[in-house]
Amino acid sequence: MKVGYIGLGAMGRAMAANLLRAGHEVAVWARRPEAMQPLLALGARATGSPAECAADVDVICTIVTTGDDVRQVVLGPRGVIEGARAGSVVIDHSTIPPSVARDIASALAGCGVHMLDAPVSGGERGAIDATLSIMAGGDADVFARMKPLLSAVGRTLVHVGPIGAGQVTKACNQLILCAFIEAAAEAARLASASGVDFAKVREAMLHGSAASRALDLFGGKMALRDFTAGVQSRLHHKDMGIVMGEAVGMGLAMPLSAAVWQQLNALIGQGGGMQDTSALLTVLERQSRPT
Amino acid sequence: MKVGYIGLGAMGRAMAANLLRAGHEVAVWARRPEAMQPLLALGARATGSPAECAADVDVICTIVTTGDDVRQVVLGPRGVIEGARAGSVVIDHSTIPPSVARDIASALAGCGVHMLDAPVSGGERGAIDATLSIMAGGDADVFARMKPLLSAVGRTLVHVGPIGAGQVTKACNQLILCAFIEAAAEAARLASASGVDFAKVREAMLHGSAASRALDLFGGKMALRDFTAGVQSRLHHKDMGIVMGEAVGMGLAMPLSAAVWQQLNALIGQGGGMQDTSALLTVLERQSRPT
Repeated sequence: MKVGYIGLGAMGRAMAANLLRAGHEVAVWARRPEAMQPLLALGARATGSPAECAADVDVICTIVTTGDDVRQVVLGPRGVIEGARAGSVVIDHSTIPPSVARDIASALAGCGVHMLDAPVSGGERGAIDATLSIMAGGDADVFARMKPLLSAVGRTLVHVGPIGAGQVTKACNQLILCAFIEAAAEAARLASASGVDFAKVREAMLHGSAASRALDLFGGKMALRDFTAGVQSRLHHKDMGIVMGEAVGMGLAMPLSAAVWQQLNALIGQGGGMQDTSALLTVLERQSRPT
Repeated sequence: MKVGYIGLGAMGRAMAANLLRAGHEVAVWARRPEAMQPLLALGARATGSPAECAADVDVICTIVTTGDDVRQVVLGPRGVIEGARAGSVVIDHSTIPPSVARDIASALAGCGVHMLDAPVSGGERGAIDATLSIMAGGDADVFARMKPLLSAVGRTLVHVGPIGAGQVTKACNQLILCAFIEAAAEAARLASASGVDFAKVREAMLHGSAASRALDLFGGKMALRDFTAGVQSRLHHKDMGIVMGEAVGMGLAMPLSAAVWQQLNALIGQGGGMQDTSALLTVLERQSRPT
């Protein structure tokens, strides 16, 4: 297929490269033009705006940071909507509020352009290895048509429901993941305050009912006190903001999510936004000094 | 080995049966004499008190509910301490506060009796299949001597540290597990309030960064709205009470654990103590009516 790719950060760069390797024709655009270079070397075509990137392609993929970023590149001046032809499909891989995904889809529909909200899970490693989980919302037929393309960047492709359902799923995923990291941090704090080696506690737990990939990964970083990202905590903080926005909007009690969000606020506040989210352990240590 | 087994609930019954199948000689005692019957059919010897159960054996295993229960059967009238010979070993598989484990061990040490605190994870299924995770605290030599016995009831045996370390590890395990269940409940609530089928959300998440056995198990029960235990929430409530007791005792900030504990309080309060912990979803639904 002919694909326009917008957003070439760590995730987008790796995903666009996998599309090229799978034999797709890829046009690229990024806010920072130098971000396009590695893709051009793989055979991508540079463009001067999202509108130009979206012209003469079947599919436009976007992966940027916030809901406002997606709005800007899709609906803003020289945005995708100005170039995309009727019948083409926008696939947004960003993690943004479900309501923003629905708004953008509805504006695109006015021009005959389809949209899938298709956030991903699996991080930079998953993007490089094309093993991402992709949780998609939108029209089932459009999803079916896009499956061959999506399978070049991810391993698990699930169509969850109508537009926005992908973002709801990602919000669910992130609240569980962030809660898990905070829970691991509280466990690490309890263990060390009790004079027990958390590395051994983690080892024992990896075979029990609390076992998970996240315990392995983030618990491992806590045991080593290695807080280099990984996933920068500011991104999880943004994701929990989406979760709490939904909770506030719908009047949902989410006491655990609220507690996690406050701890992430504290981590950002103490200057840890660029650290891995496992640094939530250091927030607890400040709240009650290590013994 | 010659083993005395005290406490024949769902867990103890299955574990004692596995000891018998592995060729150990087992004497049993339970508060309710009828609980001994299935074990006697497998060749166990009935006794009339914990003291009698502890006499003439090498190892005494206990698995009862609370710290007070362990104190009672070990240190109370006609308790283990009155029957156990010097050099024998008490292995307590119950989940109790670390401080209580340390107290009991210290009383036993006065009579030359060793103790391991060796709580287990894996539930009734793991007890039946002898696939439990056992997280043990106590003297390393005693643990090494007990390994052949423990391997008849569990698959993963980890010596975490000195006496009490097993209970600290179990507390860590339970806080992570309970936080995970509450997080899954908040995700389920968010999904259904957003009009998205949580069964599909769960399916998508099972391949992503939030994946875990607990999501599979407890998330599955939430998707089906099947709140039959499984693990009765009153037991997790008891475990979170241990976690918060440690937090209070040491002055540790544990905001996530505190939130989970309150939700479990609410579940008990609404009469759900015998339901599975996945019924935490119904607490959230009462806190904000289903749309």
